[in-house]
Amino acid sequence: MSLKRKKVSVIGSGFTGATTAFLLAQKELCDVVIVDIPQMENPTKGKALDMLEAGPVQGFDANIIGTSNYEDTKDSDVVVITAGIARKPGMSRDDLVQTNQKVMKSVTAEIVKYSPNTTILVLTNPVDAMTYTVYRESGFPKERVIGQSGVLDTARFRTFVAQELNLSVKDVTGFVLGGHGDDMVPLVRYSTAGGVPLENLISAGRLEEIVDRTRKGGAEIVNLLGNGSAYYAPAASLVEMTEAILKDQKRVLPSIAFLEGEYGMDGIYLGVPTVLGAGGIEKIIELELTDDEKAGLEKSADSVRAVMNVLA
Amino acid sequence: MSLKRKKVSVIGSGFTGATTAFLLAQKELCDVVIVDIPQMENPTKGKALDMLEAGPVQGFDANIIGTSNYEDTKDSDVVVITAGIARKPGMSRDDLVQTNQKVMKSVTAEIVKYSPNTTILVLTNPVDAMTYTVYRESGFPKERVIGQSGVLDTARFRTFVAQELNLSVKDVTGFVLGGHGDDMVPLVRYSTAGGVPLENLISAGRLEEIVDRTRKGGAEIVNLLGNGSAYYAPAASLVEMTEAILKDQKRVLPSIAFLEGEYGMDGIYLGVPTVLGAGGIEKIIELELTDDEKAGLEKSADSVRAVMNVLA
Amino acid sequence: MSLKRKKVSVIGSGFTGATTAFLLAQKELCDVVIVDIPQMENPTKGKALDMLEAGPVQGFDANIIGTSNYEDTKDSDVVVITAGIARKPGMSRDDLVQTNQKVMKSVTAEIVKYSPNTTILVLTNPVDAMTYTVYRESGFPKERVIGQSGVLDTARFRTFVAQELNLSVKDVTGFVLGGHGDDMVPLVRYSTAGGVPLENLISAGRLEEIVDRTRKGGAEIVNLLGNGSAYYAPAASLVEMTEAILKDQKRVLPSIAFLEGEYGMDGIYLGVPTVLGAGGIEKIIELELTDDEKAGLEKSADSVRAVMNVLA
Amino acid sequence: MSLKRKKVSVIGSGFTGATTAFLLAQKELCDVVIVDIPQMENPTKGKALDMLEAGPVQGFDANIIGTSNYEDTKDSDVVVITAGIARKPGMSRDDLVQTNQKVMKSVTAEIVKYSPNTTILVLTNPVDAMTYTVYRESGFPKERVIGQSGVLDTARFRTFVAQELNLSVKDVTGFVLGGHGDDMVPLVRYSTAGGVPLENLISAGRLEEIVDRTRKGGAEIVNLLGNGSAYYAPAASLVEMTEAILKDQKRVLPSIAFLEGEYGMDGIYLGVPTVLGAGGIEKIIELELTDDEKAGLEKSADSVRAVMNVLA
Repeated sequence: MSLKRKKVSVIGSGFTGATTAFLLAQKELCDVVIVDIPQMENPTKGKALDMLEAGPVQGFDANIIGTSNYEDTKDSDVVVITAGIARKPGMSRDDLVQTNQKVMKSVTAEIVKYSPNTTILVLTNPVDAMTYTVYRESGFPKERVIGQSGVLDTARFRTFVAQELNLSVKDVTGFVLGGHGDDMVPLVRYSTAGGVPLENLISAGRLEEIVDRTRKGGAEIVNLLGNGSAYYAPAASLVEMTEAILKDQKRVLPSIAFLEGEYGMDGIYLGVPTVLGAGGIEKIIELELTDDEKAGLEKSADSVRAVMNVLA
Repeated sequence: MSLKRKKVSVIGSGFTGATTAFLLAQKELCDVVIVDIPQMENPTKGKALDMLEAGPVQGFDANIIGTSNYEDTKDSDVVVITAGIARKPGMSRDDLVQTNQKVMKSVTAEIVKYSPNTTILVLTNPVDAMTYTVYRESGFPKERVIGQSGVLDTARFRTFVAQELNLSVKDVTGFVLGGHGDDMVPLVRYSTAGGVPLENLISAGRLEEIVDRTRKGGAEIVNLLGNGSAYYAPAASLVEMTEAILKDQKRVLPSIAFLEGEYGMDGIYLGVPTVLGAGGIEKIIELELTDDEKAGLEKSADSVRAVMNVLA
Repeated sequence: MSLKRKKVSVIGSGFTGATTAFLLAQKELCDVVIVDIPQMENPTKGKALDMLEAGPVQGFDANIIGTSNYEDTKDSDVVVITAGIARKPGMSRDDLVQTNQKVMKSVTAEIVKYSPNTTILVLTNPVDAMTYTVYRESGFPKERVIGQSGVLDTARFRTFVAQELNLSVKDVTGFVLGGHGDDMVPLVRYSTAGGVPLENLISAGRLEEIVDRTRKGGAEIVNLLGNGSAYYAPAASLVEMTEAILKDQKRVLPSIAFLEGEYGMDGIYLGVPTVLGAGGIEKIIELELTDDEKAGLEKSADSVRAVMNVLA
Repeated sequence: MSLKRKKVSVIGSGFTGATTAFLLAQKELCDVVIVDIPQMENPTKGKALDMLEAGPVQGFDANIIGTSNYEDTKDSDVVVITAGIARKPGMSRDDLVQTNQKVMKSVTAEIVKYSPNTTILVLTNPVDAMTYTVYRESGFPKERVIGQSGVLDTARFRTFVAQELNLSVKDVTGFVLGGHGDDMVPLVRYSTAGGVPLENLISAGRLEEIVDRTRKGGAEIVNLLGNGSAYYAPAASLVEMTEAILKDQKRVLPSIAFLEGEYGMDGIYLGVPTVLGAGGIEKIIELELTDDEKAGLEKSADSVRAVMNVLA
């Protein structure tokens, strides 16, 4: 019956990491520790203090600290990894994978050292392989190492559908399987607006265009920003998953989960419908897929395996 | 560019009316006027004051007044009607209809006098016929006279499904057509948990039991309470519809709407999927129905017509 | 690092108890158990179910059950006592005290049996003596047995001031010491509107009238309702105190606390400024009082002692 | 009785502008238009789209667009100006003033053209002189041109006090007069923690240190970040003021207001306690000041006048 405040550590103080920290504090879900490398310690402290000073005005009450010392993450209930580099023009995919793999390894060692019972959420790209790296390095049970991509993809799909129909996003549901981006497998047949199937409301051709825009949703933002990538919606997605775990909500959310037989896959992290609660991924939900969906999922898995082959 | 506060009047200060007023104020959606008959003026004032005194603690800021003078409702943006009697043991259905019809007539005359451009939401039973009465008496366009039943029925269905599966209610969707109670036509084929069709998660037999419990959801509460009927969930349902209108949200919610050709019906108020926004019912969404669903909707319409025949 | 959901039990399913339960669930602070006597078990279950069915619409996710079996309260983080009778016309004060004392005794025995480490909040009147009874019966440390009156009195004061000045209640602060009602000792000299002292904004005479209305705030509602007493603002007050404990917020709130030397008092429960957190009353804050304030507090203590003399 | 959604335009898509836009949308207070110069149009659109895609996950429903075309701001209810440059090392104060004055002039002309009845909030530094520039250029009544500094300063003071005492920021109040930073005039004598005067809780010397840290609160963040300045708390402050206007809340908040006789000042914008509502600054509250406070306010006014002399 301990009423100790919950604690979440966010690794990486970049835009996504900082926004994640702020949204967590704003909801009074937990105290927040933002961690970055020693060279970034002061800016990280600066962001944390600035957020804290928003508390009296926004009406929230949560401690937020910035640090480069992992000791401050001790006994975190959840750790969110946003650290790593983004792919730059001219950088090969293999270089990206190898660099971020090194980041994952060093970060994971520190997390495990101070919070051996925590649950880890991974956002760093390429997310399936990076989640796998953290899983392997941590030695944690698979339920407690989880990647994010489907919550964000679904949010984009819902946004585009709501705009198309001029309806509230609150009432649009969607659902995706498989990998991020090109490998996303959308299940539009069960997507609805207030319970009304989208096929009743949008033509098949237009719906295909919306699915395509969703696949390229990350690139659309990158191209507009010119310098950098999306962070508001990715942070919000991480927060939704974190809240599900902290509050033991039993949310049905798409997660990048380690498959051992489910959907005919083995030994691979892939996006599937899951139940998220205090135990992390408490269940993987298996669905009957159409032949097209099965083919899409296979293609998605092939892409993940190709990246996994690059891992050291 | 007027930033005048919005105003909602709630007719009837019983449990449902009072709870509706409180939930509206709590969300800072509007100022609230609770109206009851002169004999109930003091208790109505007492409830309003008690709610107001909860404001500093709950952190909301909205004016709430109790009155028996309809002048206080002047220029309401939305009016919610909860007034009327409940069916008592030994009372015939026709007596109920005739008594509540009188209440609707007198209430509507006052509403129209002071708020000729408002939108009216009706909860009073039998709700389809009472909504029709208010429509006819008000002379309002059909878009601005709306009945509630489907939001509540769907909420109950979602509650029961979430309990059955031990999942968050946030992720369970559902959808109903037709009348309240026995005449409800559930469309389970598009109901999902986080996008996963319920048929993947619950056996057909169990799902049928849940639908049946939903149909009898009002009676279940009446039987437990022993004296009185449900008011928390009905009030929450009215508030969701009111918010959609006040904020012009374009929510896709089931409403009791006046049909003129839609679903092959004419001149009758019946529960159908609608888009709710600043204009009231901005659209009725038509769905392809299965033969079973069509038959259910016909049966539902027959029940409504039977009650309409009793109207003076 | 257990992420088990928090649990609060509310003893008494009357208006205040039920509203407290609903507001707790609505904030997703905890799961809620409402307890009443066996004869009220079904109505209690009915209210709990009705609240639960409001969840999907209000967007909250919390389990709420109604019961007459204290086993269901096992391992509650906080227990809120609203049970007991109200003083009826013709009933002597001593009858009230003795009846409610019996209720407190039987309720406390059950609470302690199933939640030996919980914190108890008491609302039942006369609240100082009833909190003392629970303290004595429970054998709990004084920090974990707390009475409510000052949060409510302050809320009423703030409401009246905000109305007087046509300002937001969010910006009006106030503060009271001592007992409920007539024995309340208001400290208006530190009450402000947005940091501006009230004496700059309201005349002394008018402020005295507002203080007097605050003292009689409970009776004002009783007189208006005609049958029953306030419950919205009392429930909101209990919820604010409960939230402070559940979230370890270190809120500075007036509580009825057991004094052992503070303010020159000993062995008596009296309203004083406290810090509420995971440990219950984590601190009693002592203030320099003016002679008038001291005299008021003495008078308040005398009233409490007079009631304590009636206790069995 | 128009239920058209409210609209706020935020000029400047930098960190403060973007964060302001996000927080406004998140609260569903209004639709939001973010405006920047044509060269920044795509990044502005990118940020707006990213925010919009957070909506389904965070549960908010508001339109957000990025643009360089002021026509899109037409009929804004409130316009928030965050545009302008920050002082760089080696830049003279006069260069800063003259550059930002040009920005204010061009921005104001566009705002007035499309929203002649709006209310303008100014954040750009030096904020007193920039607010004055916007006032003069707009030809608006003084009530509808308002500068921000005191809400932020107060938030920082409250944060530091709450940390010092390990108490909830929710219960700490504070209040400042005069200019931003060095010219801030804190009124600690009416600052409290839950109604308890701070002087009862913190030593005079420590309180002076906290006041001093508050004065230098902006520089503290600048020094930590190394590159850039605070934006979370400034954005939250702008949102609180905007909300007060949009919801006609009659909040008592410190604003930079145009004084014509109040506090013995004339023809100058200076930080004073105000009532903010639908009419902008609906009232300036005058306080009795101590001699020290008067001297501080004079010094503050001198600083503002020195900057005003640089204005073209």
